[in-house]
Parts: sequence; structure tokens; C-alpha cells
Amino acid sequence: MTQQSCDILLSNGYLVTMNDEMHIYPQGSVAISGNKIVGVGETVEIETQFQAETVIDCTGCVISPGLINAHTHAPMTLLRGLADDLRLDVWLYGYIMPVEREFVDQNFCYTGTLLACAEMLRSGVTSFCDMYYNEAEVARATAKAGMRAILGQTILKFPSPDATNYDESIEYCRHFIEDWRDHGLIIPAVAPHAPYTSTPDMLRACVDLAKEFDVPIHIHVAETNLEQENSIAQYELPVVPWLEEQGLFEAKVIAAHCVHLHGREMRAMKTYKAGVAHCPSSNLKLASGVARVQKMINTGLHVGIGTDGAASNNDLDMFEETRLAAFLQKGIFGDPTMLPAKMAWRLATIEGARALHIGDITGSLEVGKRADITIVEVTNIHQMPNFARDPEAIYSQLVYATRSSDVRDVLVDGKILMRERELLTLNETEILDYANRISRRIDAFLIAREGNILSKLLAISADFIPQETFEIQVKVSITDTLNLTSLIEQAGFKMVRPSIRAQYDTYLFFEDSDNERLRFREDEVKDQDGKLRNTFYTMTLMGPANEKEFDNSIMLTRARFTATARQSLRFYREYFRPTREQEVIKHRRRCHINHEQTDFAINLDEVADKQYLEIKCRTWSASDANRKAILISELLEKFGVKTDSQFKIEYLDLA
Amino acid sequence: MTQQSCDILLSNGYLVTMNDEMHIYPQGSVAISGNKIVGVGETVEIETQFQAETVIDCTGCVISPGLINAHTHAPMTLLRGLADDLRLDVWLYGYIMPVEREFVDQNFCYTGTLLACAEMLRSGVTSFCDMYYNEAEVARATAKAGMRAILGQTILKFPSPDATNYDESIEYCRHFIEDWRDHGLIIPAVAPHAPYTSTPDMLRACVDLAKEFDVPIHIHVAETNLEQENSIAQYELPVVPWLEEQGLFEAKVIAAHCVHLHGREMRAMKTYKAGVAHCPSSNLKLASGVARVQKMINTGLHVGIGTDGAASNNDLDMFEETRLAAFLQKGIFGDPTMLPAKMAWRLATIEGARALHIGDITGSLEVGKRADITIVEVTNIHQMPNFARDPEAIYSQLVYATRSSDVRDVLVDGKILMRERELLTLNETEILDYANRISRRIDAFLIAREGNILSKLLAISADFIPQETFEIQVKVSITDTLNLTSLIEQAGFKMVRPSIRAQYDTYLFFEDSDNERLRFREDEVKDQDGKLRNTFYTMTLMGPANEKEFDNSIMLTRARFTATARQSLRFYREYFRPTREQEVIKHRRRCHINHEQTDFAINLDEVADKQYLEIKCRTWSASDANRKAILISELLEKFGVKTDSQFKIEYLDLA
Repeated sequence: MTQQSCDILLSNGYLVTMNDEMHIYPQGSVAISGNKIVGVGETVEIETQFQAETVIDCTGCVISPGLINAHTHAPMTLLRGLADDLRLDVWLYGYIMPVEREFVDQNFCYTGTLLACAEMLRSGVTSFCDMYYNEAEVARATAKAGMRAILGQTILKFPSPDATNYDESIEYCRHFIEDWRDHGLIIPAVAPHAPYTSTPDMLRACVDLAKEFDVPIHIHVAETNLEQENSIAQYELPVVPWLEEQGLFEAKVIAAHCVHLHGREMRAMKTYKAGVAHCPSSNLKLASGVARVQKMINTGLHVGIGTDGAASNNDLDMFEETRLAAFLQKGIFGDPTMLPAKMAWRLATIEGARALHIGDITGSLEVGKRADITIVEVTNIHQMPNFARDPEAIYSQLVYATRSSDVRDVLVDGKILMRERELLTLNETEILDYANRISRRIDAFLIAREGNILSKLLAISADFIPQETFEIQVKVSITDTLNLTSLIEQAGFKMVRPSIRAQYDTYLFFEDSDNERLRFREDEVKDQDGKLRNTFYTMTLMGPANEKEFDNSIMLTRARFTATARQSLRFYREYFRPTREQEVIKHRRRCHINHEQTDFAINLDEVADKQYLEIKCRTWSASDANRKAILISELLEKFGVKTDSQFKIEYLDLA
Repeated sequence: MTQQSCDILLSNGYLVTMNDEMHIYPQGSVAISGNKIVGVGETVEIETQFQAETVIDCTGCVISPGLINAHTHAPMTLLRGLADDLRLDVWLYGYIMPVEREFVDQNFCYTGTLLACAEMLRSGVTSFCDMYYNEAEVARATAKAGMRAILGQTILKFPSPDATNYDESIEYCRHFIEDWRDHGLIIPAVAPHAPYTSTPDMLRACVDLAKEFDVPIHIHVAETNLEQENSIAQYELPVVPWLEEQGLFEAKVIAAHCVHLHGREMRAMKTYKAGVAHCPSSNLKLASGVARVQKMINTGLHVGIGTDGAASNNDLDMFEETRLAAFLQKGIFGDPTMLPAKMAWRLATIEGARALHIGDITGSLEVGKRADITIVEVTNIHQMPNFARDPEAIYSQLVYATRSSDVRDVLVDGKILMRERELLTLNETEILDYANRISRRIDAFLIAREGNILSKLLAISADFIPQETFEIQVKVSITDTLNLTSLIEQAGFKMVRPSIRAQYDTYLFFEDSDNERLRFREDEVKDQDGKLRNTFYTMTLMGPANEKEFDNSIMLTRARFTATARQSLRFYREYFRPTREQEVIKHRRRCHINHEQTDFAINLDEVADKQYLEIKCRTWSASDANRKAILISELLEKFGVKTDSQFKIEYLDLA
């Protein structure tokens, strides 16, 4: 028999094919010609059949299909460790999004992807599924690395770092697909970020685009319980049925996370042949929960494993991810036979490929498939001994005792991308140089921001209008119970815009901050019967307590910046990390009066069971302040208030 | 100022001291003299103050206290990957214990510990807390490796690989303590395995021994929910209160696992200053659950992190364990701010030391403490970039993005044990040689056992008596409803030992097993009123269905071995993994009769709504079988049963 010549022979390895029969060859070889596998089997047979210029000896190693990272945000690797151990909203709105707004551009996406590819190759990943901005740059970097990828251009209902609206994103995505659809390694995809960041129109446009080019849709689905709750509250439908109504599943869907799917939703997704990307590290780290992976598998869904972005993981280590996936099913659902090592390795390889709709070309070592292969050492000290009695114990060794650092060689599409732990397509020094430069710039940006409460507030308040306002005011302690209406009328004034309010103020104090403090106010406006009419939330950055003092303890105060508070008090507390905080609860009857053509607010306040009269008006200049201080003195006389009961402290100093 | 001379200077590292103030020196140094730390601080200061022969440059590395593995079974590293993805009982009684019975000796414990030490040093561990057999051998190996350890000699209420009873174990433990108590690195300990494997007397003796020598007690506590349930059922007390009653906490306790502690139990343990070893991987893998670590910390307990043994993990990787500990608290208890990286690194170092009652000598880098130090690279591709804005981001980098393979150097007690990833006290080739030899022997043992159902049954049945028994029998189908009493009396016999039974038989079938099968029988014996009197469980290994056939379809069958079934049907199913199984439910009225001085069992059985008459007797030889076949023919005639209704198949063939 004459030998067939091929390009590369991988020989003498412990070969796990991950084909349908799960064939294992403890002494196995793979023959590669061009970008395809042409022979798989026992070493003696393959070596009889094939000869190659390049023969890679795999003694002491497993030859496995390359790992498939089913969900990531490659460029975000540049944000690894930026902010951790924070609640999702603080992490996202407080850190990730402000930094993305400032730094994410084409270069960021290109180099971030190179960094991600370097890390992924080193940990045996051959294919990944991405979702980010400027995805054409992600594609350029992935092609340079030589990896296989499904690359989803993010589309959001609100402005993003690469588009001011979703029409722009969809247009970008169309060009991206047209430019990259014929590339041998890159499959462009449409990535509407999530149901709750989409509109029905936007989703429809995404589905139409995906169908037009027969490319997948990559989307986050049911990542948190809150998402499910909100979907039911808003649409009276769980997430998947709502997506069904939008026609999403007309396209080939890759659904990331799926932590909170109901059984019915799993069955629906199975019908639509949607793939699932399970991201256990990220789901734990952000406290989203644990997906019912074994149940999804039992339902017949194709489930892959993903690292998610390095900003919430904080690495792209598929070995860690696969082990964790197996551990969690057992420990959380109370059955140690769930997601056994063999099945876990299937998820990391062939099932991952199927979840990404590329199971026909990769994910297993079979003749005719692309040569996407990882060679992993299995005789290092932390992996030994091994037990040969059961050939399938190799899966346990791979999943439970092997680490990324054991990966020796990686091939994608028949090309050797890593050989003896040396990356052949990427320059790591250059990549790290860029990564360090960008992290120093982000450091500087955040240090400037963190050192200054106003900047920190501006970073999270797109609609915040930085405008200083000054008030001139006096507070008088009242011993007898006063009636605001009688007080005003007896002094000969007319009550303007009377209102009743309950104000819950929380002051956040900081050390070393020039006496600045933040006030979070929950302002309940009631009608004259005491019924709640409206609630306002405001966040105010205040200057020092006393800017200037006039006669009669009349003060000039400065409320530098006020904006609607869009987040909870808890958010601001965790975001600003005050050194101290104080609460002031105030029941206020307020009206305005006109005195000498000037508007004054008259407040009769009850604070900590005591009554106070407060007179306030806005002011614009020093001479204006002086004039108004005199007017306030006149009002005090008209109201018949003795001046020795006046005091200048603020309510928050009462405690 | 004159420079002080010292032995070793670790310089230019990112120094995390883990002292009470959590001092960090981004450019820091440690000076070591003998086995102690003599200087800690900024590199410029330390280098001004000290000079040393050996200077180790730590640029690009973190200098951290060595990691503390708070719970392991070092020699079990030799059983890594022996059996996985099994339920606890199948894993323990089916695999681990039979293999331990056969293989665990002094040599196993010595070499197994060397293997464990090699792996632990490579992953930055400097101290560990052990529990196993032949602990003096574990001590010898640990001392050779040069690691610090608390070594607990296991004491069990039943026979163990190194003792036939607990008196022997306690005696061994006393000698072990006497021999090793003065060693600089080894702290011997008493290790009653768990509450449920102890008797009160045994625990008392353990506490007395520990107090006599002022050594710790190492014990598993509340690892599973079942343990808590059983404790409450048996003693009307949860585990910790029961241990309190036994006086356990008079000694210094190190409690492993603590997965299912009630708040009150945590508070009690805090009062007694007991340490906790949290083992997240093992608790997940064996489906025990997730310990409330954050709550224990809030209660004021000192919690360390342990890998548990490699047989249930399957590695001794403290980086993996620490990251998992942090992830799990967030993900399972729904709050991403729980167990932040900084606290997780404390658990892995100083809190671990405190949990092991050695916080005064190790766990942090402070002048006067022992030099137990780990130097970890933090500028590898999977760890970059880093953000310098918050010096404490280093903890996030260590916990979330760093791997064991990033550990470069390790020092214990002032001695360099690993330098540039080279182990200086251990010969890994020799250790691996031994590990491979023992795993080949275990393979052979298990292959012999697995290939033979009898051996496999014997491996888990200490009280199993392998004795073949033969029966001669006939079964006759009955169309009219028969009454056993009338049948027997009309034929002129006296009923002996009549009984009513419900028998639930499950047959387990195997391919390629010479027609052997296993029968699991649940045998409910009822009195004449049908009230349940007793239930027996038996496991029977049966030979081929028809051994020999006589006239009138009378058969000789062989029930090779029978024993009381101590485990559940589920256990046997998962342990034996039959290719097929079949259930036969039988309602039986039975009595014995005496015919020709021979005892016959007469069974009137209802199976699948049909009635059968069965006549059976034991037999001992071929000629005896022939004689009894003739007697059965006679009985058939006396009972007036037509021979064409006879059939030779067994009940399990009816389906």
C-alpha cells in the first residue's frame, strides 16, 4: 500500500475524538491536509496510511478538538480587574460604561481582541463567539490571530460607543457582514444586546438582517432573575415567549447565559434549534445565579460553555469554566452524577460548536472537518497518577485536574498557532505594551474622577447639568405650634403654590473633599388632604455649609449641582463610598410669597419632633445677596419671630 | 547607618503583608534571617537597612504570605481520578474504601504525601492541615519536603487501614505526637474522622489526648445535610451541640467543611475559638452544598480554605479554591459584594493560619513571624492589564486572574523550597514513578474486580460469605384461585412455618458476564393478618437460569452467593452499572412441608395478576438432585396439578 502524503501528522497522543460514538484512541494520531482532517485513528494505522513533512509527537498529551468559548466580549479583556466585587449596576453604570464611553474606539477593539486571542490560544481555545462594538476591528484581530470566530456586532436601543442610534448600528452591521461573510474563519453575526435593551422594531430589523445573510443572532437571554420579573411585569410574558413574539427565532440564535429559563422556555428554544452559552464564572461573580444546564441538556438543547468578558470573570480560561460548570450542577442541584466530566468536555467542544451552529465544521476530530485541535499535557505533577482501567477516565483528568497552563500546542484550520507554548501569529510583548498604555490612561481618568466628587457624579449622569445655584436663608426654631396659613395671612401676604411634602434626605460625607457632600433626596409631594401626589428623587452636590454669614444669622449657602437621581440610594452609597452618612427626615408645609417683588419660599418644617420656620430665596450676586438678607430680616419682623431664637446650623447638624 | 546582614532579601515585589492593617507596598521587600522575617517594607528602606548574600528580585511578582491549605488528605493524591461523578456512597464504599483497604500502607502514605507536597508547593502553598492514616509517614514526607503542617492521625470507630480498633489508633496517635511534637515544622494532631464515625467514648479519649499534649483536634463537621438530619434524629441535637456535649471544644478544634451549620452553631464555635476549613470544590463535586462562609466570617469565626483530598477535587490548587470560594458566596447567596477578593485572599493566608491555630507564627508577612512566603508572577498574558488606581486591585488580580502556574518561588521557614519553578527538596521524577507504579497496581486490582461481578460484590461486602447453594424447583401455572391451606391439607401434609410475604425483586443483567445476574430483594414478611412484621434486604448473585433440566420441567438452579444488602438498590445500580434491569413483584403465601424426610418449600405466588404454585428444595449433589426431582413429581401428583400446565421459565421471563 502506498502512503498518502499530508501536511501535518499529530502522533502518539491520547486521542479523544468527541465524535458521536465518543471514540477514544489511547495511542492515536490525526492526519491533516490543508485546513482539513484527513485521518483519525490509532497511531499505527494512521502512520501506515499517511506521511507528512511536519510530525508532532504528542506523547504524554491528549489530542482533543479545540475548546469553543461560546460567549465572550474579547476587547473587554483590556478592562480585566477594572472594578470587582460590586453590584451589577455599580459595576456597569459606575465603571464599565463610563470607561467604555471614554476609551472604546477601533484601536481599543483591535488590540483588546489580540490580547484576548493570545490568552485564549494559550488555554486551548480554537473558536469563540463574540459580542462587542466595532466588530470589524475584532474581526481584523481575530483573522490576524488565525482563530475561528462568530463575531456579533452589538446593537442597542440607546447610544453606544460606536453608534448614536440603532439604525447606525444596523447599517454598520450590514457592512460588516458584507465585508467578512466570505472569510474562511470569521462568521459575522448580528448581536442585539438583550431583550431589555431592544425595542420590537430594533429586534425585527436584526432578524431581517440575519435572515438576509443567513448569519446567526447572538444575544443575552434571561441572565438575571430581575430580567424575567421585569419581562413578566412589562409584557406579561417571560423572556423567551416575548422574543418568540418578536420573531427572533426565525434566525439561528445563540443565547448567552440563560440562567433563569423556565422549562417551557427551554423546550421552545429546543424547537427553534437555538444554541445556549453557559457562563458559570460570570453568573456567580455578578450574583446572577446558576443555570440549569443538566436540565437544558436533558431537554435536548445544545449547550456550550463561555467565559463571558474578562471584566466579569476575570479571565478567558475555558478549563476553569468547564470544571466549574460540572461542579456547579452537582453541588447546587444536589446530585454528584450530574454533568459528569465526559459530558462537560462535550459541552466545551462539540456541543459548543453545535450551540454556535458550526458543529458541521468543527468541535470534533473527524475526517472532513476543519483541523481545530488542542494538544494538552496530562502527565504533570498536579494531574498524576492516572488510572487506565477506564479509558473514559481521561475526561475526568481533563476536566477536574488539568489547567490552561497544560496546553502545549494549538492548531486552527490546519495551521499551527501555538507550538510548545510559543504563539506563532501574535506578538505578546507588543500587545502587552498597548494594554499597559491603555490601562495607565484609564487609571489616570479614574483617579481624576475618583478624586473629585463632581467628576464622579458627572461620569454617571449623562443628563446632569453642572450649574451652581446660591441660596440665602434663615432658620428659626419655633416653640409654639404654628399654622402656616395664619402666619402668612396675619403678616399680610398671599400664599403662592402651597404644598405639603415629606422629604427624606440622606447626606453622604467624605474625608478630604473640601467639605463637599452629596444629598440624596426622596421628595414626596402631597396634596392638601395629605394624599401622595408625586415622588421626586434628586441628587445634589453641596458646597461647604456656610459660605458667608450676614446679620441676624442669615446665611448664604451653595447648592452646586442638582440632578434627577436615576439610581437608588444603595447605588450611590456603593458607588461613592462615603466615609459617613446622615439621614434627615422633614415634614414640610411650604408656600411662596412675594415681598418687594422678590420670591421667597416659606417652609414650616417638622424635624425630629421640633418645628422650624425657614425663609429662603435664590440669589445671583454678592450685592443681590446683601439686599435679600435685609428683606429676610424684614420678613422675620413681620412674622413676629424673636431674633434670639434664630440659629444658623442646618438640619443635619441637629443630631 | 550600618547595614544589618540577613540571609535572604526578597526585593522589588508588590508586597501584600496581610497584617492587621493590610499594608501593601507596591515596591516592597522582605528581609529574612534564619527562619524568621526581620524586615518588611518599601524596597528602598529595606535595602538601606539590610544586606544579604541571597537577593531574589521579585519584579513583576507579588510577594505574599504562603497559602494555607486548611484541609486535605495528602496521601489520597495517589487516588486522584480513581472514580468520579459518582454519588458519595458509591464513590466511598464502592471505590475509595476497598482500594484503601487493599493499598494504603506506610509507603503509600509517605509517597502520596511527597506527591501532594510537590503539587502544593508548585501552587504556592506553604502550610497545610492533614487528616489520614499512618500519619507518622505523612510527617516524614512533609519534613522532607520542608513544608509546615498540622497532621491529624485519623481515629475511627470501625477498623481502618492502620488499625483494627480505635484504641489502637489512639495509641498510635499518642506515639506519633510524642515523636513529632518538638519538630520545627510539624504540629501533630488528633483527628477523630467525624461525629458520625465516632462514639462518645472515642471522642472523649481524643479530647483527653489533645489536651494532654496541647495539640489540635482536626475533624469533619456537618459536611452534608444528611449528617445534620441524622444527628437530630439520633441525638435530638444538631452536630455542634452534640459535639459540645462530648466536650470536643475543650481542645483547639479545626472543623472541616461546616457546610450545614445553623447560626447558633456558628456562634457556639466562635465562643470556643474553633477554626473552620471551607472546601468549596469538594463540597460541590460531592454535592454536599455551599457553606455560608460570609455569615461565618460575620459571626467572627476564623475561616480558612482547603482543597480536601485530591480524590474528591481533583487537585490541590489553592488558587482555584480561593477563587471558587469568592464566586460561590456571591452567586449562591445573591450578592456580588460578598467575600470580595481582599477577604478571599485573607482566608487563603492569615485567616487560614488562624483557623489552624498557627496565626501567631505564620499567615502574614510581619517582623518576627516565620518566613513562609510565596512569590507569584502577575504580569502574564492572562493577568494583564492591571489597574494601579486602587492598590487593593492587586487582590482581585490574585484571586480572579492568577493561576497556580503563575507561582514562581516558595519559601517555608526561611528556606527556599521552589526557585524559578524548580523544586529543591523533592525529586518529582521519583515521585511520579512511584505514583505510576501504584496506579498500575490499583488498575489491575480494579480491572480484575470490575471484570467479575463476584469480585465486585466481594469488594463492598465485608460480611459476604461466598457459598454456592443449589435449588431444585418447579413452577406451575394455576388457573383457578387456590387456597394454600386447603391444598396442603387435602394432599395430607402438615403446614410448617407458614408465612405471607411481598417480595420486590430487581434483577440486574450484564452483557458478557456468563449469564450471571444480581438480584436485589426487598422481602416484606407479614403475619397472618397481613400486618408487616419485618423487612429483609438481600443481594444474590445468581448463575445461569437453567443449570440442568429433569423430567416434568423440573429445574436445577444455582443461587451462588447471598448476603444481606446493606446499601440501597440505587447504590447497587450505580455501582454495578447493569446493562438492563427488570423488576418482579410477587405476593407469596409460603409454607414448608415434610415429604419423605425432605423439607420442601411450597409457594403460592401471585405475579402480574396470575397465580403460580412453586415447589422448591435445596440440593447438594447430582444424585441428590435426581432423587429430589422424583419427589417433586410425586408432590405434583398429590396436589393434582396437570403436567402440561407446568413451565420452566422463571418469573422474570414473564414480562
